[in-house]
Amino acid sequence: MEKTKVGIIGLGTVGTGVARLLLDHGDRTARHAGRIPWLEKVVVRDLTKPRHVDIPEGVLTDDIQQVIQNPEITVVAQLIGGIEPARTIMLQLLESGKDIITANKALLAAHGPELFDKARQLGRCIAFEASVAGGIPIITNIGQCLTANQVTSLRGILNGTCNFIITQMQDRGEDYEDVVKEAQRLGYAEADPTLDVNGADTAQKLSILSQLAFGVRVNWEDIPCKGIDELDIADIHYADRLGYRIKLLALAKLVGHEVEMSVGPTLIRKGSPLAEVQDAFNAIRVHGDAVGPVFYHGQGAGQMPTASAVVADIVDTVVGRGQLTFNNLELWSESNRPRSMADAGPSINRYYLRMQVIDKPGVMAEITGILGSNGVSIASIIQHEPKDQDSPATVPLVIMSHDTTQSAIARSVEQFRQSENIESEAVVLKVL
Amino acid sequence: MEKTKVGIIGLGTVGTGVARLLLDHGDRTARHAGRIPWLEKVVVRDLTKPRHVDIPEGVLTDDIQQVIQNPEITVVAQLIGGIEPARTIMLQLLESGKDIITANKALLAAHGPELFDKARQLGRCIAFEASVAGGIPIITNIGQCLTANQVTSLRGILNGTCNFIITQMQDRGEDYEDVVKEAQRLGYAEADPTLDVNGADTAQKLSILSQLAFGVRVNWEDIPCKGIDELDIADIHYADRLGYRIKLLALAKLVGHEVEMSVGPTLIRKGSPLAEVQDAFNAIRVHGDAVGPVFYHGQGAGQMPTASAVVADIVDTVVGRGQLTFNNLELWSESNRPRSMADAGPSINRYYLRMQVIDKPGVMAEITGILGSNGVSIASIIQHEPKDQDSPATVPLVIMSHDTTQSAIARSVEQFRQSENIESEAVVLKVL
Repeated sequence: MEKTKVGIIGLGTVGTGVARLLLDHGDRTARHAGRIPWLEKVVVRDLTKPRHVDIPEGVLTDDIQQVIQNPEITVVAQLIGGIEPARTIMLQLLESGKDIITANKALLAAHGPELFDKARQLGRCIAFEASVAGGIPIITNIGQCLTANQVTSLRGILNGTCNFIITQMQDRGEDYEDVVKEAQRLGYAEADPTLDVNGADTAQKLSILSQLAFGVRVNWEDIPCKGIDELDIADIHYADRLGYRIKLLALAKLVGHEVEMSVGPTLIRKGSPLAEVQDAFNAIRVHGDAVGPVFYHGQGAGQMPTASAVVADIVDTVVGRGQLTFNNLELWSESNRPRSMADAGPSINRYYLRMQVIDKPGVMAEITGILGSNGVSIASIIQHEPKDQDSPATVPLVIMSHDTTQSAIARSVEQFRQSENIESEAVVLKVL
Repeated sequence: MEKTKVGIIGLGTVGTGVARLLLDHGDRTARHAGRIPWLEKVVVRDLTKPRHVDIPEGVLTDDIQQVIQNPEITVVAQLIGGIEPARTIMLQLLESGKDIITANKALLAAHGPELFDKARQLGRCIAFEASVAGGIPIITNIGQCLTANQVTSLRGILNGTCNFIITQMQDRGEDYEDVVKEAQRLGYAEADPTLDVNGADTAQKLSILSQLAFGVRVNWEDIPCKGIDELDIADIHYADRLGYRIKLLALAKLVGHEVEMSVGPTLIRKGSPLAEVQDAFNAIRVHGDAVGPVFYHGQGAGQMPTASAVVADIVDTVVGRGQLTFNNLELWSESNRPRSMADAGPSINRYYLRMQVIDKPGVMAEITGILGSNGVSIASIIQHEPKDQDSPATVPLVIMSHDTTQSAIARSVEQFRQSENIESEAVVLKVL
């Protein structure tokens, strides 16, 4: 059987998993590819670092030129994270005639157009299944399996760290800070979890999925984004009493010729599949105009699930499917007739509001009056008696609205800020 | 943009959906295919029958030779059900140089080897995404997205009619016969629903998925199969009290070099994704040794979901991916080193048993004695007081076992049959 020589750049968690699959299961990948995806070179920064995979003699190198300048290596898994030097390496690999597989969503979200244009100019391809939702093959599913559809909406739990933290807060009733410490101890959260918990990672992934599903070319930093770092355990409790769970949800919806997009903690009715996603799992619900709703659930990260996605892309590229798919996806391409992101203001949703209000006559009338004057109709209210220690007596007030616009909610919140009877900034969460 | 001329054989529910997508959304399919999948001919039996799609002048014909003998038509969606004449038409289409898309699972389950061998000989390809689980792209997911994995198990709800009936029985507390009548009225069940409710349809689909996932070449009629046609509402109630739901489940599991396979009503713990699949939806859980569990949920049948799968296959075939995938899948091929189906006897599961027993001293000791002597360990028991009208007083007895072999359960049931104290044949269901 003929070989296709493959290089790996970066032997971190995912790179190690990819090397293992190629080395230990070469029969499997060869059977699916019709050729042997042969691991020729693995580039690392530090040759002396202990590795969790046995790399054959002569394969490991700290000289990236051994990949770039080797014309026999035609497929490269580029598994370095972050923007630089990953971007420069990608461009060099393309220039030297390699097809590339990457898991680097931050790089694609920031430099997708540059990289994809370069690949198209040079007749090369980039595969990126592993960049979103690790073990869920969502890129192939949207890009290839649902081609008969216009995707009309996407809803995703795309960050396993956040979902683990939220699930733990809910199950154990512990505050955000305590759960994050536990998640770090268990390896579910990084030492600096900022990009996970502030929603940036989710927004980057949403920008990639939305480009794929809607052709919307958006700077991920422009997506309205709230993380879970300010999520209060109280809201998880109130949501639970109202029959909902809170998840960090990426949302994209086609409205006319525009796409509404957002990332934020969102209330989802219990029993619906997205609401029941536990621990570090990811899940995505895609709605297509022909197929209806399709729901995917799997491991969003971790060594072997992510390596599974990278190796599927390697097989696709070795077989020749990767090139065909890349050419026809026209991702981040001008010919893709890009849609634009909709203004958030007119977008219609139900909302959950919570604020701490002074417990005296007339306050409820004031609040409901503000909402009513902005056209916000109330679906339900929870108000408790004040606790003894509150002085002056304040009580939490929770309101669920009917469908309304984001701007009507924003105007109401602005007016709440003016009121002397409302002590805290209102918590505002979308409700699905 | 260049055209690839496409033919459709059969303009039933699915054919009509496919024609609609090609005619109404030609821009969409052309964008994804890089060429126009051009609907050239649609073959029907009766030209005078009213149609729910506007077919352009000159496209509709009752002469299949207009497709077979037209060398410009290179891709054909063969959408006639049943074995003949579908099999002969498929062979003729292959001989005349066409690549074929089909939704006909009964034909593939019965004649897959013949058809696939013929296609390979002639350098043609057969795509069959629509043959299993309509709107869930499970064929591409197993055959292409999970190539880095050995699939270790499959669990599927593959028949929407059965799931609709079971869900209705559970929600409305009505007997099987009443619910079937309602399902027929609503169009969820055929006038003769036999092949759905007796599990044959599910077994055919399981045989296709298992060929794909495990390379096991099995006659679907050899798969141990129980339908829902003898499912008693009482078992749904008892399962509910024990914390389970009953679903008609297709199961396949790799054990050593063999594959355990079965179809039957199965208890699944509430809250697990498969247990919560409602109405006519399908769902599949695939476990891969690298990716872990991946769960898919979507519409299993219906015009547009199934047409979505057929058109995705048309686009794949027009792009050229279909041929690459078909060549490397080696389905039903001798070179696929086929695994064989395991004997059911040694397979290990938990079991649910229900029988009607005479309410007198010593009976429980007799039953538990029989189970014990066969090595079956009991996890829980439900026994009720007799109702007044029972004479001689009999009571239902429900037993949940710990893990045990199928043969141990079969031996126990055989001994129950000999007992004068056990009135009814024991109901035996697997528990996941």
